[in-house]
Amino acid sequence: MTCRVDAAGNLRGRLSCATSSEAPTLLAGSHLDTVPNGGRYDGFLGAILGLALAEGVVQSKLQLPFALEVIGFSEEEGVRFGTPFIGSLALTGELHESLLQTVDANGISVAQALADFGCNPAEIPRPELLPQAVIGFLEPHIEQGPILEAEDRPLAVVSAIAGQTRAAIRFVGAAAHAGTTPMHLRRDALAAAAEWITLVERVAQQTPGLVATVGAIEALPGAGNVIPGESRLQLDIRHADDHVRLNAIQQLKTRGAELADRRQVSFHFAQLHEHSAVAMDESLTNLLEECLPSANRTQQRLVSGAGHDAAVLARRFPTAMLFIRCAGGISHHPDESVTLEDVTAALTTMWLFVQRLADLKRNRN
Amino acid sequence: MTCRVDAAGNLRGRLSCATSSEAPTLLAGSHLDTVPNGGRYDGFLGAILGLALAEGVVQSKLQLPFALEVIGFSEEEGVRFGTPFIGSLALTGELHESLLQTVDANGISVAQALADFGCNPAEIPRPELLPQAVIGFLEPHIEQGPILEAEDRPLAVVSAIAGQTRAAIRFVGAAAHAGTTPMHLRRDALAAAAEWITLVERVAQQTPGLVATVGAIEALPGAGNVIPGESRLQLDIRHADDHVRLNAIQQLKTRGAELADRRQVSFHFAQLHEHSAVAMDESLTNLLEECLPSANRTQQRLVSGAGHDAAVLARRFPTAMLFIRCAGGISHHPDESVTLEDVTAALTTMWLFVQRLADLKRNRN
Repeated sequence: MTCRVDAAGNLRGRLSCATSSEAPTLLAGSHLDTVPNGGRYDGFLGAILGLALAEGVVQSKLQLPFALEVIGFSEEEGVRFGTPFIGSLALTGELHESLLQTVDANGISVAQALADFGCNPAEIPRPELLPQAVIGFLEPHIEQGPILEAEDRPLAVVSAIAGQTRAAIRFVGAAAHAGTTPMHLRRDALAAAAEWITLVERVAQQTPGLVATVGAIEALPGAGNVIPGESRLQLDIRHADDHVRLNAIQQLKTRGAELADRRQVSFHFAQLHEHSAVAMDESLTNLLEECLPSANRTQQRLVSGAGHDAAVLARRFPTAMLFIRCAGGISHHPDESVTLEDVTAALTTMWLFVQRLADLKRNRN
Repeated sequence: MTCRVDAAGNLRGRLSCATSSEAPTLLAGSHLDTVPNGGRYDGFLGAILGLALAEGVVQSKLQLPFALEVIGFSEEEGVRFGTPFIGSLALTGELHESLLQTVDANGISVAQALADFGCNPAEIPRPELLPQAVIGFLEPHIEQGPILEAEDRPLAVVSAIAGQTRAAIRFVGAAAHAGTTPMHLRRDALAAAAEWITLVERVAQQTPGLVATVGAIEALPGAGNVIPGESRLQLDIRHADDHVRLNAIQQLKTRGAELADRRQVSFHFAQLHEHSAVAMDESLTNLLEECLPSANRTQQRLVSGAGHDAAVLARRFPTAMLFIRCAGGISHHPDESVTLEDVTAALTTMWLFVQRLADLKRNRN
């Protein structure tokens, strides 16, 4: 392989196509960074599987009608600069100047950090790869969720990366004495929040594929013997279909306002963040699905609730993702764990995928 | 009046009985301390009304068959030493040595603070007043709740001071990724808490006289995109009948454990504090009720959800409380407010009460 670190710090190893210097490139890999106190497989396993795939190609002397490039993205988690996907955005030409000037906790910019690492950030604004030069991107990654384990399957293909809305919700009532205020004269902001949290859960349970979470809550003034006058929540809601997500949000807003009216409290919904769902490439995903182990051929598709470099690359290149079962759905934690059997199944699937993609490419030419 | 500060710092003014040095004493008053950033009427209004009552007796040259002692309790709120009712406990001989050695934030004990103020704490263990020497205690006090205002009444007599339980509740589930964990595989400790808070509210609404409040809540780890693995709540529950309160707690524990089981989370209930309800004296309370303004003669009795010196004195002496309407039920806040008309009605009621009590005493002798 011809190996290099590109201008954005991505580690890239390329097996050129032996038959044509004009041949497009198949990308495979994932990110090399992780989170503080993270596990050993998030990201890294996908890059290693790309490398194992290239090793297979070389050792078997397989002649591919495309180049194979293994990629280890430099910065996907967003830990240092508070913004994710730096490596993959550079690859698609979307790492804009404002993002390059974003600074870390010590005031060092992305551009400076790259220069200090020996990269030349001046090259970044030029997209590294143009759409016509890429036949596809395959990202193997641990599921980071519990579904495969619960369904006793080693692998799944990803149909889409979910769209997400994050919002801050407040209920404002009236603080009052917990002993002297009878139930019918209360305007309890936490009781209102509790009713709404139960509603969030029920709407998500009744909407296939929807996940909705209230992860943070605060009651003010927050004393055991004072009726809360205000409550503050954070909502996270995700779905592969943006319409489903937006309809659910509308329902939660309408019914939140209704229950607040009934309780004589006010309801405030402020959107903090939103991104749309990103579908994986249908042809490439079908092909990947056909390569799964035969025992794994029913209900193979999962929606990724978490973001991935694949969501960035899918906006430019045909992209597919392969999810690998991880113990307990645990990720971003030292307990992250996979089995040798599941990783072997993933590599076998990737190997079949590359061969079939090569067959298709040869037949088209 | 003969005035003095007693060994516990209570300010006391005595009108002796003109007809007999053996005559018992009627106590009237409330506490003189307040909370930081408190209002002008909590406690103080009751002491001033006691003084106004004594002034009326002197000015009208009313000959009472008992002594009248106006009392301003020194420390009811418990702000400085974290323990309430210091003045009233001394009066009944319950201010024990361990409480006298309790220290404030600067390490100064109750005993030392009293000595620094010119009192002699060595006298405290001896009860100031023996039961047979007291014909009764009348405590006028602002309601500190919204009921009288909501019912458009100036005054109420207090039937009992509610018993109270405070408890810390925890639900423990499993923290997980808000995006990758489908609804049916969650063990969400905050969703469990929300269901229980709604239950607390419903049980209280369905149980006459019960007040139950979740005033504080925390979700852990408390990030918007993480399913809470643990939630911590504080419960405050009060009722005039201890059996009703204890039954409600049992119901909340049983149903909390049930909903936790269904959700595969655990439920932990730790009692932090408990005190029993204290009934006011039936005869004295009936007499006080008969003295209320005639427009105020229906549904006159309230349970006090808050604690008062009257609860301490009621364990030794016949005790009655008179509640005075306060604006918005607001207390412990500079917005505390009463009307001149309501205070006048309270003083008139107290004046009638003293005269009728004198008549009863004369008829008994």
